[in-house]
Amino acid sequence: MQVIRTIAEIREVIRNAKRAGHSVGLVPTMGALHTGHGRLIDQGRAECDLLVVSIFVNPLQFGPNEDYERYPRCLNDDLEFCENHRVDLVFCPDTKELYPNAQKTYVEVEEIPRELCGRFRPGHFRGVATVVLKLFNIVLPDRAYFGEKDAQQLRVIQQMTADLNLPVEIVAVPTVREPDGLAVSSRNRYLNPEQRQSATVLYRALNAAFQQLCAGERDAAKVVAAGQAVLAEEPGVREEYLEVVDAESMIPVKTITGPVRIAGAVWVANTRLIDNLYWKGC
Amino acid sequence: MQVIRTIAEIREVIRNAKRAGHSVGLVPTMGALHTGHGRLIDQGRAECDLLVVSIFVNPLQFGPNEDYERYPRCLNDDLEFCENHRVDLVFCPDTKELYPNAQKTYVEVEEIPRELCGRFRPGHFRGVATVVLKLFNIVLPDRAYFGEKDAQQLRVIQQMTADLNLPVEIVAVPTVREPDGLAVSSRNRYLNPEQRQSATVLYRALNAAFQQLCAGERDAAKVVAAGQAVLAEEPGVREEYLEVVDAESMIPVKTITGPVRIAGAVWVANTRLIDNLYWKGC
Repeated sequence: MQVIRTIAEIREVIRNAKRAGHSVGLVPTMGALHTGHGRLIDQGRAECDLLVVSIFVNPLQFGPNEDYERYPRCLNDDLEFCENHRVDLVFCPDTKELYPNAQKTYVEVEEIPRELCGRFRPGHFRGVATVVLKLFNIVLPDRAYFGEKDAQQLRVIQQMTADLNLPVEIVAVPTVREPDGLAVSSRNRYLNPEQRQSATVLYRALNAAFQQLCAGERDAAKVVAAGQAVLAEEPGVREEYLEVVDAESMIPVKTITGPVRIAGAVWVANTRLIDNLYWKGC
Repeated sequence: MQVIRTIAEIREVIRNAKRAGHSVGLVPTMGALHTGHGRLIDQGRAECDLLVVSIFVNPLQFGPNEDYERYPRCLNDDLEFCENHRVDLVFCPDTKELYPNAQKTYVEVEEIPRELCGRFRPGHFRGVATVVLKLFNIVLPDRAYFGEKDAQQLRVIQQMTADLNLPVEIVAVPTVREPDGLAVSSRNRYLNPEQRQSATVLYRALNAAFQQLCAGERDAAKVVAAGQAVLAEEPGVREEYLEVVDAESMIPVKTITGPVRIAGAVWVANTRLIDNLYWKGC
């Protein structure tokens, strides 16, 4: 497994791989790799000749009061993880390598980032779209892998890819959960055992809402209320949002007619967690 | 010479060219080709194995009251022009091919588009950057050619290319002028003989300003005033702006210390013309 920190070096490796007719896969990550990343990597490993994992904690996607400084960084563990998952190349540039000068160019996607996380993290998806596009332009992947846990991010990337005619296939990979339903996330490391226990309420709330949908409820407010009732039972957890959104536009719906996501964000003490469930309609 | 109208077809041609190890050059145009484009094409022809000219009047870069509808369209003449300049491939998609759905993704460059044309054409450079990035992602050029006449556009594209790590070399090509100094432009076709005569005042004004610089004047206001005095002598021409800007940021300077452009925009009846001169400092 190669570990590369500069753009010039990875461009050279990619160029040679492409010349040899090899397909390139990219799993963009911020490190602190877990079984969710493992699933992205395993799928990429199965589908691509040269599998690249990027590890970069992107300052552009963190707000001024968010957890950029605190975000877990554990490169040695991550490299071992990648090695075990038969990754070919880890690209782990430092901040100066990706942002040598003040960034003046941003990718802005309209509509999709407006609600849900975008409402509480202004600029977040702009930062995500911009760094992902930079990584695409450096790694030139044929396929790139994103988790459905970050459903709004996935939609932003899909929309950017379509609108900008990017020559890459975006592969959506299902959320990986702990046995008790908690979606795996790098931020789960912030939780102490008690908080870890409380955190399961988000998945339970989403499921309660989902059950309403399965039972035939089409009024989004009632579906949401069922989820909120579950959240309210957990005093250590504060709801940031719980919404039923159109699965494509990520805009809340009033009446559920087609594919939607039930998406939630909660705070468990100082830790923000998100999760969602997809409902394809009937 | 191949003439291709669909993204799928050109992707196939480009893929084969790259597989064969050929370099690809792109000259993005809105058609109505003239000797300025000819110079871009000739340079691309000399430097690239496969030379692509795109012809697309991009609605995204026109404001609601601008000349999108009126913009000259003369594909047959343009194809003949390209044939004569030994272009390999003309890519001339229709609007639905490049924008099959409502575009939600835009490239925003900060600072550089703020003044000059950007002040009078809000959204213009966003539209330019977005379509150029789309074309880059379709044609995957090794080199792309842009004229210095559109100096602010050139800087926007250069900045986007650097900030987004685009794997393309941006080649700046000097402005081509008529014998009387008028910068060649597709919009010159709008001018009747009398207006065509008046239009030369822009180049004369820029030169008058430039002479001040050469004479040692470093106060931008005085340099501009010398140009404005010339413009004022031509009653059929209305100044939109005349500025001395930093050649990199395209922001007006007060005192001239380093490389600048003297840039102007004028209206000759209903026709808007721009031009600029580069001064590299001393």
